[in-house]
Amino acid sequence: MQKLAIGIDIGGTSVKYGVVHENGEVKLKESFPTKDFSDVDQFVNYLSERIKLSLAGLQSDHELIGVGIGAPNGNYYNGTIEHAPNLKWSGIVPLADLLTKKINIPVYLTNDANAAAIGEMTYGGAKNMKNFIMITLGTGLGSGFVANGQIILGHDGFAGEFGHTTVFHDGRECGCGKRGCLETYVSATGLKRTVVKLLSKARIDSVLRDYSYNSITSEQIYKAAMNGDQLAIDAFDFTGKILGMKLADAITIVSPEAIFLFGGLANAGKLIFEPTKKYMEEYNFPIYKNKVKLLSSLLPENEAAILGAAALVWNTEK
Amino acid sequence: MQKLAIGIDIGGTSVKYGVVHENGEVKLKESFPTKDFSDVDQFVNYLSERIKLSLAGLQSDHELIGVGIGAPNGNYYNGTIEHAPNLKWSGIVPLADLLTKKINIPVYLTNDANAAAIGEMTYGGAKNMKNFIMITLGTGLGSGFVANGQIILGHDGFAGEFGHTTVFHDGRECGCGKRGCLETYVSATGLKRTVVKLLSKARIDSVLRDYSYNSITSEQIYKAAMNGDQLAIDAFDFTGKILGMKLADAITIVSPEAIFLFGGLANAGKLIFEPTKKYMEEYNFPIYKNKVKLLSSLLPENEAAILGAAALVWNTEK
Repeated sequence: MQKLAIGIDIGGTSVKYGVVHENGEVKLKESFPTKDFSDVDQFVNYLSERIKLSLAGLQSDHELIGVGIGAPNGNYYNGTIEHAPNLKWSGIVPLADLLTKKINIPVYLTNDANAAAIGEMTYGGAKNMKNFIMITLGTGLGSGFVANGQIILGHDGFAGEFGHTTVFHDGRECGCGKRGCLETYVSATGLKRTVVKLLSKARIDSVLRDYSYNSITSEQIYKAAMNGDQLAIDAFDFTGKILGMKLADAITIVSPEAIFLFGGLANAGKLIFEPTKKYMEEYNFPIYKNKVKLLSSLLPENEAAILGAAALVWNTEK
Repeated sequence: MQKLAIGIDIGGTSVKYGVVHENGEVKLKESFPTKDFSDVDQFVNYLSERIKLSLAGLQSDHELIGVGIGAPNGNYYNGTIEHAPNLKWSGIVPLADLLTKKINIPVYLTNDANAAAIGEMTYGGAKNMKNFIMITLGTGLGSGFVANGQIILGHDGFAGEFGHTTVFHDGRECGCGKRGCLETYVSATGLKRTVVKLLSKARIDSVLRDYSYNSITSEQIYKAAMNGDQLAIDAFDFTGKILGMKLADAITIVSPEAIFLFGGLANAGKLIFEPTKKYMEEYNFPIYKNKVKLLSSLLPENEAAILGAAALVWNTEK
């Protein structure tokens, strides 16, 4: 009998879920828009029906061990999503409990970047690592920290919000209400803000001068940089500098074996890895210099969130 | 039969050691200057003879379980002191092995601030805490991080060097070779550097204007502040601001139940606690606001290092 878990990734725009074999094989993968459900009970009803249908469609003999959910502001201890700015459900949503009642199976929930870290540890490049950092680069910057072989959840279950450390004390406005947060510099949005700042600051020509703030995308910036556009290259360099400097700070706390970068920006390869590595080493406290590996996540991007959420089930069962 | 451990604290100026009962009672406490021993073998010979004499002098029946050592740049995994800038022994010193050979008892070693954290967890205010941060404020700033009930040692055993995170990228020169490190602002030395900077920057009168850089002490600054000297008060405020801001960064990684301040500067009470708390909350990411306790260490200052080092023995035995 196959042991299976369901991994669910709840994002601001879509919900992705999949049925995952213990060995990491994704047997089925689906998604639907998050915004269709302003009411959480309606969402849980729909989700549980979809899960039942998906399982019924599986041909092989199987046992469903549990459901893992990665969600913004997800709290592992309580199984709740709390005040998530990108979701329509306001306040504290006891999602794990609501779903358990519908499907009678243990449901585990944590924040999306912690789920990614657990996924990397279970199925990716951190299989034999006890101490590492996972950085997810999307619209924002998510993080998961693993020390002594365990994810750091903290006293209240909300550890791993490295995107909201302060880079510049009077810096860019952040969605969280603070200023100068790391994710306002290091993320797809941060990269764009840096480009637009450089457009105003520098005089160098750039293909990006013909686009409005709203129309510039990180893909365009990437293409421009690959075509030799110096302003776009400078924007990546600045992004890597800020990330490298702050990773050097994080290293002093957890002294990791490796730091994994995952997500859109990480796919820019050398453009982001080279400056990040350079400045990380420059700012590293001497005893850490040239010891910490900076690596690409080995999780396949289109399955990573599902694998990470599913890994939460195996990680908790052990 | 009483179970005993020996706790040894190796500092740049003196070596303190004590015989500690499992319940935290310090049965005997001694010290001698570190600088008398430029050769580590000579040091180990002397130390082991002193230990034997101390134990022979104990009247009650006892069993010595182990020896714990807290030392700058101490590495728990290897039992080594590595390239400690304040000690005369250069390179990598296998102190735990050398001492074990002399006294035939397990010897555990870690950095001094990690030892303090373990001491706080075993005998102090963190007895029932699984997630907390220990900050030791002396000549420099040491730190120990506890997550999931375990000290974070990291991949190489050197985790917990929070004093060397970067506050200002082109800031004050640090003994480590970097610039702008936290401990150049938040420590006894950092406070003094801030006072001297304010003497040049501000025009306000101060009793501290009559002293040379070399003659100013943190005790003088404390007394001046307690007597209402505004410049001295401002120096404490700035110190607390920098510490508070950086603690808000650290909170995003480990989400602790509490942060303990220990050592000279921490004894300044409200002068340091109030601005630290104020700015920590100001810079806190919203989900952490008003959740993390900022506390004084409950370890008696003159026994803390010995208790912390001894606690390493019980912590490892468990």
